[in-house]
Amino acid sequence: MQGLHLTADLYGCAGEAVLLLDAARIAALCHQEVLACGLTPVGERWVTFPSYQGRPSGVTGTVLLAESHLALHTWPESASVTLDVYVCNFSGDNSAKARTLLARLIAAYAPARQLCQELRRGGLDGAAAAQALT
Amino acid sequence: MQGLHLTADLYGCAGEAVLLLDAARIAALCHQEVLACGLTPVGERWVTFPSYQGRPSGVTGTVLLAESHLALHTWPESASVTLDVYVCNFSGDNSAKARTLLARLIAAYAPARQLCQELRRGGLDGAAAAQALT
Repeated sequence: MQGLHLTADLYGCAGEAVLLLDAARIAALCHQEVLACGLTPVGERWVTFPSYQGRPSGVTGTVLLAESHLALHTWPESASVTLDVYVCNFSGDNSAKARTLLARLIAAYAPARQLCQELRRGGLDGAAAAQALT
Repeated sequence: MQGLHLTADLYGCAGEAVLLLDAARIAALCHQEVLACGLTPVGERWVTFPSYQGRPSGVTGTVLLAESHLALHTWPESASVTLDVYVCNFSGDNSAKARTLLARLIAAYAPARQLCQELRRGGLDGAAAAQALT
């Protein structure tokens, strides 16, 4: 059950606006990048929030992986996004794949500023390491 | 976009065995506890992995929230579970609700040992705090 959980909180995203607004486009991006990184999608769910005061709202969703999950939430009103990539290392070390997936998604959103953190999950020795990276 | 991300990695779960094996029961538990804590489910997706060498495999899934998400993965072969509760504080501070939800789910699984961690996400000042609690 030992694994790696990566988070990225992105501000001032200058990538394509549809990646903040359009659940189908976001889902396609995530699916494509998950496969490109050698991870294994097993299910997904995406929800678009109703517009608020005449302005479009965000999208929230997840891709369930054989290795654990990817989650994404967007705030188009502030061009912000949060990302989670969590992989367990049950059948092999998936850490490099997780880092690559997160980097590719961050690149697609092209944030002006980002806060990346990581947690080491589980581990039979009960040890934990949490680190703020940026 | 400022928020709180709680994780719990549970070992030696002595709660009902169906909570490791049965996606419908796990989904019902999560839905019930999300509502009981005053959080807002907006969608969900659950997947049961195929049995392996004649033994039942785990369940993976998520409940998407208006406040962000709950994610859960089970490993019945080792009676282990990982939980994530992530809430944003866009419309108010949901931290107490998130802590209550995590505590209620941990109680349902009744682990012999647990590793709980938390991350403060986002924040306009770019500050991050990561903490290993147990």
